[in-house]
Amino acid sequence: VAIRILENIEKLARSRAVPCKALLVGSAARDTWLAGDHDLDIFIGMPEDNDLGAALDLAREIAPHHEEKYAEHAYVHANIEGFEVDLVPCYLVKDASRIVSAVDRTPFHTRYVSQRIPGLEGDVLLLKQFMKGIGVYGSELRIGGFSGYLSELLVLCYGSFVGVLNAAGKWRPGEMIEVPDQSHHEPQNTSIAGRVQEAWHNDPLVVIDPVDPKRNVAAALTLDKMFQFVAASRCFLRQHSDKLFFPPKIAPLKDEELLDLMDCRRSALVLIEFDAPPVVEDILFPQLRKAEQSIRGLLERNGFGVLRSDVAWHKVTSDVGDDGLARMLFELEVWELSQVKKHIGPPGWEAQHIDRFLSRHAKPLSGPYIQGGKVVVEIPRKYTNPRSLLISEMDQLSLGKHVKQQLHDGYKIYEGNELIQIEDMEFRRFMTAYFRKHMYIC
Amino acid sequence: VAIRILENIEKLARSRAVPCKALLVGSAARDTWLAGDHDLDIFIGMPEDNDLGAALDLAREIAPHHEEKYAEHAYVHANIEGFEVDLVPCYLVKDASRIVSAVDRTPFHTRYVSQRIPGLEGDVLLLKQFMKGIGVYGSELRIGGFSGYLSELLVLCYGSFVGVLNAAGKWRPGEMIEVPDQSHHEPQNTSIAGRVQEAWHNDPLVVIDPVDPKRNVAAALTLDKMFQFVAASRCFLRQHSDKLFFPPKIAPLKDEELLDLMDCRRSALVLIEFDAPPVVEDILFPQLRKAEQSIRGLLERNGFGVLRSDVAWHKVTSDVGDDGLARMLFELEVWELSQVKKHIGPPGWEAQHIDRFLSRHAKPLSGPYIQGGKVVVEIPRKYTNPRSLLISEMDQLSLGKHVKQQLHDGYKIYEGNELIQIEDMEFRRFMTAYFRKHMYIC
Repeated sequence: VAIRILENIEKLARSRAVPCKALLVGSAARDTWLAGDHDLDIFIGMPEDNDLGAALDLAREIAPHHEEKYAEHAYVHANIEGFEVDLVPCYLVKDASRIVSAVDRTPFHTRYVSQRIPGLEGDVLLLKQFMKGIGVYGSELRIGGFSGYLSELLVLCYGSFVGVLNAAGKWRPGEMIEVPDQSHHEPQNTSIAGRVQEAWHNDPLVVIDPVDPKRNVAAALTLDKMFQFVAASRCFLRQHSDKLFFPPKIAPLKDEELLDLMDCRRSALVLIEFDAPPVVEDILFPQLRKAEQSIRGLLERNGFGVLRSDVAWHKVTSDVGDDGLARMLFELEVWELSQVKKHIGPPGWEAQHIDRFLSRHAKPLSGPYIQGGKVVVEIPRKYTNPRSLLISEMDQLSLGKHVKQQLHDGYKIYEGNELIQIEDMEFRRFMTAYFRKHMYIC
Repeated sequence: VAIRILENIEKLARSRAVPCKALLVGSAARDTWLAGDHDLDIFIGMPEDNDLGAALDLAREIAPHHEEKYAEHAYVHANIEGFEVDLVPCYLVKDASRIVSAVDRTPFHTRYVSQRIPGLEGDVLLLKQFMKGIGVYGSELRIGGFSGYLSELLVLCYGSFVGVLNAAGKWRPGEMIEVPDQSHHEPQNTSIAGRVQEAWHNDPLVVIDPVDPKRNVAAALTLDKMFQFVAASRCFLRQHSDKLFFPPKIAPLKDEELLDLMDCRRSALVLIEFDAPPVVEDILFPQLRKAEQSIRGLLERNGFGVLRSDVAWHKVTSDVGDDGLARMLFELEVWELSQVKKHIGPPGWEAQHIDRFLSRHAKPLSGPYIQGGKVVVEIPRKYTNPRSLLISEMDQLSLGKHVKQQLHDGYKIYEGNELIQIEDMEFRRFMTAYFRKHMYIC
C-alpha cells in the first residue's frame, strides 16, 4: 500500500512539475511496526527554497476523502485501503540541525535507523510491545512515554531488548545517554558533559539525538513513565512473564462493584464533568492536566488532602456536543472540615503588621492570642466541604484556555455515591483502572 | 505578723544555741506585695558549715500545725494568723555565686532590691498587677511568666512602670538585659556579649542576675508569655484602660452556651480525663504539657489536624481520689478520615529498598505505582477516628512518669456533645476561657 501511494504521489508531482520527493518514514519504513498498527507516515519533501503549498495540494489530490489537520503546519490525514495515512509536507534540508519545522527532522531519523537497525528489528518489536503493555509507549502528551524512535535508539545503544532492560535497572533521574557511532558498542556518556543543554536541566532522561545533538529524543518522557519502565524491566528480568506484554483487558465496573470499592476506601470522591472543547488530544490533555494540578492545589490549600486524582476524555455521545465529555476525578481524605480554623499572623514584635492583621480580623471566633511567638486568630472557614469550594473558586484558577471556557459554560459535580449515575462504559472502565491501579514493580 | 514570727524564731534559736538568723524575704520584705497577697516567706539562715536539720526543727516547733514540703530540700508551710507562711532553712553564704541550693540566693535578691527600690515601690506594684491582670505573672511552670524579682529588676532597669512598657515594645526574641549598677540609668547591654552562657541559647529573654551573673532571672519565661506582655504593653500605652489590670471574671458555661459554641465552631473536641496523681503543681504541670505535646504529635502524624489544645488540673472532689482530675482537651479539624491512605515508599531507582517496601505491603488497596519518581501504595488507615487512635496508641507515648501511670490505671474520653456530661464549675470555667480565649494585643 505504501509503495503504491509513494508512486502515485511522484507520478502526480511529475505531471505538475512539482520538484518533490515522496518518503515513507516511521516504523513502516524500517520494519519495526507492531502487529495491529495500521498507521502509515508518508512525507512529501520539497527543496528548501520552495513553498510547501504545492506539496499540500498533491496530498489533497491523492486522497480525495481526506481530513486536514494542523501541527506546526497543515497536513492531510486519510484512510487509504484500511490504513490511517498521514501525508505530511516537509522541507528536504541538508542538515538535521538546520530544519524549518520539526517534521523536517523525521527523514533523517528514518535514514539513521534504517542504516543501522537491520538484524535488530525483532528486539525493537519486543521493546515496543513491552512498553505498550506496561503503558509507557507513546510520546504524545497524554502518555508522556517513549517514542518509537527513542525505543529504536535504545536498542541500537544496548544491542538487544534484554540489553535495554538491564541498562534501565541502573538509570537514575537525569540519566544521559549518547548513542555510539558504531552500533553494538557500549554507549559513551563520558564525553557529554561539555555539551549539556540548559533545556535538559529538568529532563529525567536525556538521549542525545544522533542527527541533531542539541535535541533530547526523550524530552517528552515524564519521570514517572521512566521509572515505571525501570521497575517493569526489573520485573521481567526476574519473572519472564508475558503478562507484561499483554495486560488483561479492563472490564467496566458494575454498580455494586463501584459501590463496594467506594465503601472499602471510604474516601471523598468528587468528579467534575464538562463538554470537551473541540480541540485535538495533544491540546486538550495538557490543559486537563494543568486544571487537575490547579484544582489539587486549591483543595490542598483549603485543608482537603488529595489522595489521588486523574483526568479523562470520554468520547461518549451526549445530547450537548459531539466532542465527548472531559472528566476530572479527585479523591480526598475528608468530606467535611471544622467550621473554625486557625489563622496565623505576624510575629508578636512586628507592631505595624499586627495592626493591619487585626484590623482585617476584628471579630474572630477566638483570639487574638500569641502562639509560637505569633499572633493567632480563629475564624470561620470559608468552605467546609469540597463542593462549595469548587463552585466558588474554580473559575479563578489557572486552567488552560479551552478548559476554562468550557467550565465557564457549565459543568456538573458528582460526589460519592452519585457517581453510579454515570453509566457509560468508558467511565466505568476508567473507574476500574483508577481503583485497581497497579504497575509491575520489582 | 512577720516581725512576730522572726522574733519567735530568734528567741527559740537562742534558747537552743542554734547559730541561725531569721530573715524576711520576698515582696513583703521590700514593700512590693500586692493587695490580696497573704504569703510570707521567712528564711532561717545557717552558717555554711552547719547542718540545716536544726533550722528545720526550729520551723517545726514555731508552727505546730504545719505541713512539710520539699523542693531542693525540706521546708515547713503553715497558716499563721491568716497568712500562708513558708519557713525555709537556707545557708548564709558569702557570695551568691557560691550557693548550696537555689533558696540560698534569695536573701541576696532581697538585699539587692531593698537597697535600690525605695521610691519605686508604686511602679513595681503597678507592673505586678498589670502582669497579673494579663495572665503573665508568676514563674511557676503552670504559668511560665515573670517572677516578682524579675518585675522589680525591670523597674530598676527602666526607671518606672511606663518605662518598662515602653522598653518592652522594642523587645525581640533572645533580648538580653543587664541591670545597670546605678538605678535610673539606661541598661547597658553592649558589654554582655563575652559573658553569654550556653544555657541561655533558647531563652526568649535573658535578664542577667546582678547577684549571680551566670544566671538568667527570666529563665522560666516562655516566648508566648513574653510577647503576651509585649502586646499588652502596647495596648495599655495606646488605650490606658484599667481593664488590663483587672480583667472580668470568667463565668462557667451553661449547657446551652456550651452546645451553642460547639455548634458555632463545628470542630472535633476530644477530652481525656483521669485522676490527678498525688504530686505538686510544679511536677504535674510539666508532665501534663509534655503529654499534651506528645498526643498532639500522635494526632497530627495520623492526619487529625489539631486546631488548639489545653490542659488543666481541676480540684473537683470525686469518688475516685482526693487529688482532683487532670484534663487534656484537643480540638481537631476532622472527626473522620478516609479508610484508604497513601503510603509513599522509596524512589524508583532503589531496587533493594523497593523489595523490602513491597514485601511489607503485599496486598494494597491500590498500587504499587510510581508517583513523583517514588513507589506508592494505597493501604487501609489503621485509625480513621481520634478515639480509636488514642485508645490504641496513647500508652506508647512519652508522657511523664506520673501521668503515664495514671493513664495506665484508667481514663475517660469525652467527644463533642458528650462534654456537657461534665458539670463541675471548674470545667465549665475552663471551657469559657478556652472558647473565649483572647488577649490584649495591639
